[in-house]
Amino acid sequence: MEKQEAFSHWKQQSLRKADVSKKGSVDEDIEETVRLINQQERYFTTSSCSGRVIMINETLDSSIIQKQNCSWLFVTHQLCKPDDVFAALKNATGDVVLKFEPFVLHVQCHKLEDAQILHGVAINSGFRNSGITVGKKGKIIMAVRSTHGLEVPLTQNGKCLVSQEYIEFLVQTANRKMEENKRRITRFHSCLLKALQKGDCAHDAPSKEQAPSCVYVRRRKRKDRSRKSNCSSSEEEHSDSEPELTLLNDP
Amino acid sequence: MEKQEAFSHWKQQSLRKADVSKKGSVDEDIEETVRLINQQERYFTTSSCSGRVIMINETLDSSIIQKQNCSWLFVTHQLCKPDDVFAALKNATGDVVLKFEPFVLHVQCHKLEDAQILHGVAINSGFRNSGITVGKKGKIIMAVRSTHGLEVPLTQNGKCLVSQEYIEFLVQTANRKMEENKRRITRFHSCLLKALQKGDCAHDAPSKEQAPSCVYVRRRKRKDRSRKSNCSSSEEEHSDSEPELTLLNDP
Repeated sequence: MEKQEAFSHWKQQSLRKADVSKKGSVDEDIEETVRLINQQERYFTTSSCSGRVIMINETLDSSIIQKQNCSWLFVTHQLCKPDDVFAALKNATGDVVLKFEPFVLHVQCHKLEDAQILHGVAINSGFRNSGITVGKKGKIIMAVRSTHGLEVPLTQNGKCLVSQEYIEFLVQTANRKMEENKRRITRFHSCLLKALQKGDCAHDAPSKEQAPSCVYVRRRKRKDRSRKSNCSSSEEEHSDSEPELTLLNDP
Repeated sequence: MEKQEAFSHWKQQSLRKADVSKKGSVDEDIEETVRLINQQERYFTTSSCSGRVIMINETLDSSIIQKQNCSWLFVTHQLCKPDDVFAALKNATGDVVLKFEPFVLHVQCHKLEDAQILHGVAINSGFRNSGITVGKKGKIIMAVRSTHGLEVPLTQNGKCLVSQEYIEFLVQTANRKMEENKRRITRFHSCLLKALQKGDCAHDAPSKEQAPSCVYVRRRKRKDRSRKSNCSSSEEEHSDSEPELTLLNDP
């Protein structure tokens, strides 16, 4: 089978498969982006999450490796309210952790060049931990990942260790991250449209959507960034330094 | 210039450069691994951090995008004590966040195959967010990244929002993660040695070190994992589900 044919076959099979997630469908905020990607001959998405606030209850085994007894107390893909957290905490029996997990997307790509285009779009939209995986059989996956997170223990053995005031502040923090996450998703979509229209994927079906004009510029220079780092680093640093992006009008 | 020659030149230049990090040297726990990688003709490290607990004080601008006024109150690459955190909190003037940041390593690779070998080693050692970046000029970087993290707000405008008991529990949690991180670094080193000795990089200078026999097996099956996910996912899920690895003896 031709390489292109094999990829198409793979894509058809993957898109026909039932969505195995609990929710059973793509998250609302990224539906359009997922659709746009799957419209391109050379791409198909294999997993996605628009970003979420989640509370996990871990019981029994305290080791990090074993996590068999872990249930969800609460999850939302939108902004959350302190009351959501208070209500969920009533069901705490073990160690509850509240997390904000940003947008994540996995896209299988036909060729390495196709993955490189998507990777550039992801990095320029602020998803700095994005990367490409090349399997032994030539399966190429581009993963969109952010450095943005929040992971906060709230209870120990069911006993709440934090105050109401703290939870209110935490919810504010999580919501600010969720809003920034949504802005980045919007950027990702715009930059993707632009990259596709630019002719990088000229052989794919053209999209009818319009790409807003945008150029994103990293504001902080590498020199400044490396000055801040206390780790051996000449290339990239830990996630405490989010890239600073500014939206400029592209005349 | 030949491609191999160009890469060697690049490597020499990079390794000759001064270490621009505050610390100015590679972290102790990964010195041996960094040395092993740099001994191979086809690899050189461009940045690294063995993992750290860090407390950051953010002042002035509350927006996530602007982080100009951010200073470090405390950092350690080893286990930490509650007293370290209490002492650092005395200098809090803004919003203090305590983070555990796991091992991170960036390696420039000669060919894509070389990056694939390292990527396999990273994934099999538990560093699931690892990925490859291919630049427009053909620069290939493999990034070792973990899904393991902790990011906990402690103060708002200099005012501490958490109790002593909570900080003690948090330090325990951070130290548990640090210990697991160190175990994964050891795995990474062993698996790397094994991959190099296996002849995957037979054309490189052979290492004199001995690789312990090890095979790491993911214990949880994909089916089980996808059942847990509430996001559209047929491939990979969010970082709440660390891969479960078991060390088996390789006869």
